[in-house]
Amino acid sequence: MTDATTATSTSTSTTATGAFLEKLRRRWHDGRTLLCVGLDPELDQLPTAQGADAETALATFNMAIVDATADLVCAYKPNAAFYERHGAAGWNALARTIAHIHSRHPDVPVLLDAKRGDMGNTAQAYADAIFDTLNADAVTLHPYLGGDALQPFLKHADRGCFILSHTSNPGASEFQDLTLRAADGTEEPLYLAVARTVARRWNTNGNCGLVVGATYPEQLRAVRQAAGDLPLLIPGIGAQGGDLAAVMSVGLDSQGAGLLISASRSIIYASSGADYAEAARREAQRLRDAIEELRER
Amino acid sequence: MTDATTATSTSTSTTATGAFLEKLRRRWHDGRTLLCVGLDPELDQLPTAQGADAETALATFNMAIVDATADLVCAYKPNAAFYERHGAAGWNALARTIAHIHSRHPDVPVLLDAKRGDMGNTAQAYADAIFDTLNADAVTLHPYLGGDALQPFLKHADRGCFILSHTSNPGASEFQDLTLRAADGTEEPLYLAVARTVARRWNTNGNCGLVVGATYPEQLRAVRQAAGDLPLLIPGIGAQGGDLAAVMSVGLDSQGAGLLISASRSIIYASSGADYAEAARREAQRLRDAIEELRER
Repeated sequence: MTDATTATSTSTSTTATGAFLEKLRRRWHDGRTLLCVGLDPELDQLPTAQGADAETALATFNMAIVDATADLVCAYKPNAAFYERHGAAGWNALARTIAHIHSRHPDVPVLLDAKRGDMGNTAQAYADAIFDTLNADAVTLHPYLGGDALQPFLKHADRGCFILSHTSNPGASEFQDLTLRAADGTEEPLYLAVARTVARRWNTNGNCGLVVGATYPEQLRAVRQAAGDLPLLIPGIGAQGGDLAAVMSVGLDSQGAGLLISASRSIIYASSGADYAEAARREAQRLRDAIEELRER
Repeated sequence: MTDATTATSTSTSTTATGAFLEKLRRRWHDGRTLLCVGLDPELDQLPTAQGADAETALATFNMAIVDATADLVCAYKPNAAFYERHGAAGWNALARTIAHIHSRHPDVPVLLDAKRGDMGNTAQAYADAIFDTLNADAVTLHPYLGGDALQPFLKHADRGCFILSHTSNPGASEFQDLTLRAADGTEEPLYLAVARTVARRWNTNGNCGLVVGATYPEQLRAVRQAAGDLPLLIPGIGAQGGDLAAVMSVGLDSQGAGLLISASRSIIYASSGADYAEAARREAQRLRDAIEELRER
């Protein structure tokens, strides 16, 4: 048993991962890929689950997917929910997955899709958990509490902070598309007010991005216009049915990049057999190539 | 090693905790308390940390606080961030804390302050993590994604779902106080549109509540008027400086209850010495009595 107070201090990041945005830009431009692979494993779909404990099943599956696809992606995006479902075992599997990516594929950043949003010392504890304990390069965050609440994340200039603007679910419009009137009288939809606020007020360290679902290309166009060259995380391609051509026609930044186009189930479950890693690579290659073809137009 | 696929199914709730709202109402009325104690331990402040590993330090501290205060509270509210900071060890400490409350104090519900907000199979994974794996009675949630996204939580009629309406942080107004125009032309601040939407549309199972910070009593008054007798979680008393008298004068429901008035640091750190549990009880008693005095006016 070690002294707990001492043990905490060792959880602060000792293996610096480098500035997130630099890594990402190298993958976009030198690596020629805008594909982001979501690592969202569900035990009952994993060929690695038979005869293994949950931690081993999840970590083994993820590491095989990562090793088969690392040269094809601009980032990996594990979603915390799929690990938390398994308690401490899941948490260990997530930590092992991130450590594996940093050690074997140090050029590929890890964006933890955690959708956190809290304040004060609680937000600080979340930032510690994600940037120090787990050592993720970037995170997704809720905008609802305002910019002051997110300072414990935003102050890390070397990490990325992707704020939800317009999500990909069918009911996203319930609040996000309603018209908001700002203090100066400006009227615009809530999702766009968020995008503009992030770009103008919250991005003082140059480390912000936004999340816009692939299923809402018109809103993506508006966000790109409002937010300049901010990186945009685009979930909803693949299983959710977003239109890749529409995304590519309105979402690119002024350098012909600026997007993390994320797919999860369509890649990681491309095969349910022993060839799951090879099948994931084939599907990742197909989607990466389709993106590049549209990017070059 | 157990088979992972089998292990998952055992994580579904086998120890039913009873309907959250029934438990809560009994504590409010029969137990005569609206006090909710936040279990947000920080290792460097814990007398239990010396010579102990993180899991033991956190769990031992929490269990002592709980055993010293259980008759004085209507609920416990651990915030997930303070456990996630310590990775798997923290997760185990959280699970042990919740299990301890269910086993020793089964009349007291546990509200996990997790502020989650995701969609589809991801929201389902979070609901599994919180309601099954951790077996919490209730949870806090972000409204931004809309009601469809929260269905995996809302569908559990026996669990409580507290949606953020107006948070207690200084910058809460950045979005929450701006005027939103609904599809029918109604104009009201975002926080109030959320409160009304939760009460009218999302509460079909009668298991919704709202979160309103004690630092914004005028907004609390408006939420109570808009949301009828929905339970309101009120953080911001104690270290954050919310005004208890103002909260009590505008927040009670039609039965003279309806509030979970939450304090954390002012109670759990009432003493930094070996008498921390007794000191926590004294401070909890003081605050509970102050609430009851205002409640009886």
